[in-house]
Amino acid sequence: MQLLEERIRRDGIVKDGDVLKVDSFLNHQMDIQLFEELAREFERLYHGCGVNKILTIEASGIGVASITAQVFGCPLVFAKKSKTRNIVGNVYSSKVHSFTHDQDYNIIVYQNFLGPEDRLLLIDDFLANGEALTGLVDLAAQAGATVVGAGICIEKAFQPGGDKLRSQGLRIESLARIKSMSVENGIEFC
Amino acid sequence: MQLLEERIRRDGIVKDGDVLKVDSFLNHQMDIQLFEELAREFERLYHGCGVNKILTIEASGIGVASITAQVFGCPLVFAKKSKTRNIVGNVYSSKVHSFTHDQDYNIIVYQNFLGPEDRLLLIDDFLANGEALTGLVDLAAQAGATVVGAGICIEKAFQPGGDKLRSQGLRIESLARIKSMSVENGIEFC
Repeated sequence: MQLLEERIRRDGIVKDGDVLKVDSFLNHQMDIQLFEELAREFERLYHGCGVNKILTIEASGIGVASITAQVFGCPLVFAKKSKTRNIVGNVYSSKVHSFTHDQDYNIIVYQNFLGPEDRLLLIDDFLANGEALTGLVDLAAQAGATVVGAGICIEKAFQPGGDKLRSQGLRIESLARIKSMSVENGIEFC
Repeated sequence: MQLLEERIRRDGIVKDGDVLKVDSFLNHQMDIQLFEELAREFERLYHGCGVNKILTIEASGIGVASITAQVFGCPLVFAKKSKTRNIVGNVYSSKVHSFTHDQDYNIIVYQNFLGPEDRLLLIDDFLANGEALTGLVDLAAQAGATVVGAGICIEKAFQPGGDKLRSQGLRIESLARIKSMSVENGIEFC
């Protein structure tokens, strides 16, 4: 999506260690007008697919997921992160490894809010190793919900998450796919 | 706000220990159409106040804050929670005590995203003891930003946060104010 790629080129900052800082518009400060455009693009891509719920993960996915839910006219559920080892109560839970923080955590959703009647669009700001998205797919499977697909703002296509999940049959639409990036040479999109 | 009070009466669940569960529409599953109504009410209340940025705190405040930012036509910044004791880098930080989890954490905002030119509306889903809101006011003060006021979805008016912060001069508009609640007698609004 040209609009997003241009914004990343303009305001994104590449740092060592495959870090792309887009916190001026995507995941700390949030440009809601941009999010409206991203959400409309997700709607165009998944039009007619019967999406009736958006599923995302706290915290930085919630903004774009909220605007996407608005465009689809459906509710949003966000999976909560929990460092607690013992998950109690009526929840679906899945263990996720964070490469950024090098630790495991659980993501949980109360069972009331996901079920076999749901046709889910999974939304997140980033896709890299695919850990968070794999966790959301797992929660959906536990609930018997249908995953229509995933809508990602920025995919680091040089990391393995996208390919792995696509090979498992998940439809993934990423609005900007980064082929390579470095402090010296900047960003190349796919 | 009648719409919100009716929704709380219909779908809210009072539990022991002054707990009000509204996670079916406010802070786990999110009813974005309801959020549009809440956001429009915040806009009506703060119309003409020159709000140019929304400030909230992760995670459950981000949804309603996103829709509010959309209505105001301005960006959103969310303060991140960090359990790290040593805050490094160019951030504003403030220590917040969570009564729910009985622990302290820091909330941080990168200095780039708050400044003296900002006229902030603080948005959160709940106001009870006022710890989170006090932290946001503190971050704004560090940045030299102006706090126009706060927009709260549900205030537990029987807890001290709202009165304390109003007495310090903060304008707080809460769309539903709970005077008392109990498992036996349900909810009484102010």
